Amino acid sequence: MSATATPTVTERARAAARELAFVGSDARNAGLLAVADSIDGAGQALVAANRTDMEAAAGERPAIRDRLMLDDARCAALASAVRDIAALPDPVGRVLREQTLDNGLRLRKLSVPLGVVLIVYEARPNVTVDAAMLCLKAGNACILRGSRLAEHTNRALAGLMRQALADAGLPADAVQLLSTDRAELGALLADPSAADVVIPRGGEELKRFLLETSRIPVLAAAGGNCHVYVDAAAEADKAIAITVNAKVQRPGVCNAAETVLIHRDRADLVEPIVAALEAEGVEVLDGEEAWATEFLDMKIGLRVVDDIDAALDHIATYGTGHSEAIVTEDAAAAERFTREVDAAAVYVNASTRFTDGGVYGMGAEIGISTNRLHARGPLGLEELTTTKYVVLGDGQIR
Amino acid sequence: MSATATPTVTERARAAARELAFVGSDARNAGLLAVADSIDGAGQALVAANRTDMEAAAGERPAIRDRLMLDDARCAALASAVRDIAALPDPVGRVLREQTLDNGLRLRKLSVPLGVVLIVYEARPNVTVDAAMLCLKAGNACILRGSRLAEHTNRALAGLMRQALADAGLPADAVQLLSTDRAELGALLADPSAADVVIPRGGEELKRFLLETSRIPVLAAAGGNCHVYVDAAAEADKAIAITVNAKVQRPGVCNAAETVLIHRDRADLVEPIVAALEAEGVEVLDGEEAWATEFLDMKIGLRVVDDIDAALDHIATYGTGHSEAIVTEDAAAAERFTREVDAAAVYVNASTRFTDGGVYGMGAEIGISTNRLHARGPLGLEELTTTKYVVLGDGQIR
Repeated sequence: MSATATPTVTERARAAARELAFVGSDARNAGLLAVADSIDGAGQALVAANRTDMEAAAGERPAIRDRLMLDDARCAALASAVRDIAALPDPVGRVLREQTLDNGLRLRKLSVPLGVVLIVYEARPNVTVDAAMLCLKAGNACILRGSRLAEHTNRALAGLMRQALADAGLPADAVQLLSTDRAELGALLADPSAADVVIPRGGEELKRFLLETSRIPVLAAAGGNCHVYVDAAAEADKAIAITVNAKVQRPGVCNAAETVLIHRDRADLVEPIVAALEAEGVEVLDGEEAWATEFLDMKIGLRVVDDIDAALDHIATYGTGHSEAIVTEDAAAAERFTREVDAAAVYVNASTRFTDGGVYGMGAEIGISTNRLHARGPLGLEELTTTKYVVLGDGQIR
Repeated sequence: MSATATPTVTERARAAARELAFVGSDARNAGLLAVADSIDGAGQALVAANRTDMEAAAGERPAIRDRLMLDDARCAALASAVRDIAALPDPVGRVLREQTLDNGLRLRKLSVPLGVVLIVYEARPNVTVDAAMLCLKAGNACILRGSRLAEHTNRALAGLMRQALADAGLPADAVQLLSTDRAELGALLADPSAADVVIPRGGEELKRFLLETSRIPVLAAAGGNCHVYVDAAAEADKAIAITVNAKVQRPGVCNAAETVLIHRDRADLVEPIVAALEAEGVEVLDGEEAWATEFLDMKIGLRVVDDIDAALDHIATYGTGHSEAIVTEDAAAAERFTREVDAAAVYVNASTRFTDGGVYGMGAEIGISTNRLHARGPLGLEELTTTKYVVLGDGQIR
C-alpha cells in the first residue's frame, strides 16, 4: 500500500482490526455503550432516515416493510440489545489450553479476534447494529453490506456507530458500510484476502449466492432440509406436538422441519399427525420430490419407513446436516440416532426449531453454520474468534 | 448416485466416513494396530516395492532419495509410529460444552469426525501411513495423493492398510490412494464438495499450488516469514542463541526465522549476531527485498529498528502470521509483543522453531496452519474433528 493511495475498504478494516486486537475488554465495552447511548440520543434522526426508505419501499410486501421499519420503540430495542451484548462475557483472551512443556516452555492457547468479518444481509436495520456490535465485542472489524431498501437507515446507523466509536477512542473503521453497488460486493467476494470470513444474514437465496460466488470462506447454513423421525417407540403426544411445532412455528427458517419420517410400526400415527398438520394449514406431500425439497413454507414431506436404518439412510440421502430430531422413548434408538446422524444439531424428543444461539445460551447469534470447518451450529461470540499460541521461555532453543 | 454407476473416489470416501463416524474408539484403535502388525509382517514386500521407486529415482538429489527410501528399520519405525497414534487419547466424543437449559433441554457439544480429508504430499512414504492413520484415529476417511516418485511404495502401503482395515472389519475405503495423474487431482480440487478439507504436507510450492487452485478449504501455513526481535532489554546470550537456532537448526522449514530485528539500543549486538550466523554459514542481508523474502535457506534479513513499535510495524508489514519471537527481559515489552503480534504462535525468549504438534504435546502433527478459521498453529488429532450438538429433551417445543 503506497502512502498516497486511498486505502481500500479492506485496508481500512485491517488497520482497524489490528488496533482492536490489542484493545482491552473495557475499552471495547465502552465503545458498545457509547453506541447504545448514541442510538438513544439519535432516535428522531434515525426514524427520519428510515422514513425515506419506507417511502421508497411503499410498493414492497408488508412483511418486508415491517422488517425495514424503525420507530422509537425499535430504536430503544436496538440500544438495549447493544447493552446486552456489552454485558456478555469477553470472548477474547480465554485460555483454551495451558501446559508447561518438558523443556520448561510455558504454552498457552488463547482466543483472539478473528480479524475482518464481512456481513451480507437483507433489509433489516437491526442487523446493521447487532452484527456490527457482535463483531466489535469480539475485537473484529466488520464490513457491512445491507440492502438497497434500507440504504438511508443503514447510512444513518453506520455513521452514528462510527462517530460513537471515534468519540470513545476506538477506530471508526471498525464499522464500515459498503455501498449497495453489486459490483463493489462482487469485487470483495472475488478476493480471498478481502476479509477473513463472510457471514450471511438472510434467506436461502442470499446464502446460495454467497456460497457459489465467494472466494472468502462463508460461514452459513448451506441448507435446512430438516427431519422429524417418529420412531417405533415414540409417544404419540410428543410425536404430534414436535412435528407440528418443527413445521409451523416459523416455517420460513432453516431449522424448520421439511419431512416427517414415521416408523411403520407407528403407522397409526400417520393419520393424527397429518390431521394436526392440516389443522394448522400445512399441506402434506409424499414422494421423492417432496423429500428432496426444502419448502420453507407451510408444506411438509411424509414417508413411512421400515425401520431406524431406513430413517438414517433417508436423512443421510436428503438431509443437509442442519437439525434432525427423533421422537422415541427407546434409549438405544436415541443413542443410535444421535451417534449416526451427521448434522450440526441432533435432538431427542425436542423440536428442530431450538437450533439458535440465544436458545443455546450463547447470549447472541450472528448466524448458523452447517460448515464442518471452524464452527458448526449457532454462531455466537466465541465463534467470532480464532486462536494464538503464546509461548514463554527462558532462552530455549531446539 | 445411481446404483449401477461406479462410485467416485469421493462417494467411496463419504460412505467410509459415514461408517467410521459411528465406530467406537476401540474399533478404530484395533484397525490402527492391525495396520501396524501388517506393516511389520510385510517388510520385505514393502522394501521391494520401494526398490522399484528408488531405481527410477536414481537421478534425483540425495535428500529426495533419502526421504523416499524405505528399509527394514524404517518399516519398523512406521509400524511403531502407528502404535503411538493408537495409544493417543480419542479426539472423538469429547464433551466440549454441557449445559441444561432453562426449558430442561440437556445440551452437549461433542467432537465428531471431520469427514473426508484430502492429503497432498511429496515423496515421503512415511506420510502415506502417518497421515492416513491420524485421519483414521479421528474417525475420518482420507484420500491420499502422493508423489509419482513414490508410486510403487505408496501403492504397496495403501493396499496393505486397506486390507488390514477390511480384515479388522473397518471400511477399506477409509484409505484411498489417488493416482498421480495431475488431472485427477485437479478435478477433485475444483469440486468444493469432493472433500471437507485439504491438508498439504510438503514444501512451499505445493502449498501455494493448493492455496491458489483448491475450491476445497486448505489448512496450511500459507507462508513462514518469521522474525526474531531482539529488544532493548534482550540478554545478549539468549539473543544470539535464539537467532542462530531459529535460522540454522532447519532452515528449509516454515517456522525458521527469515529476518532478525534489532532494537537500536542494542546495536552492539549486531556484530556478534552477524558473526555467529556467519560462523554457521548464514549469509546476512539488509534491505526491503531481504525483509520481504522467505529464504528457506542459509540466508537471513537484518534490520535495526528504532523501537518496539517499529518492530511491530515491520512484523505487521512483512510477517505471514506464522511464528514470531521477542528476546527481552522486560515484561512489559513481552506483554506488548505477545498481545499485538498477530500470528499462530508468539514466543518470548524462545526459538520460532518450536511451532510443532509434537513439541506442543499434541502427540502427532498432520500439518501447521496459518488460517484464521478452524485451526491456527500445529494440526493435531483434535484439529481433525468438527462438532455436533446433541440435545436431549422430553417433548420440548418452541
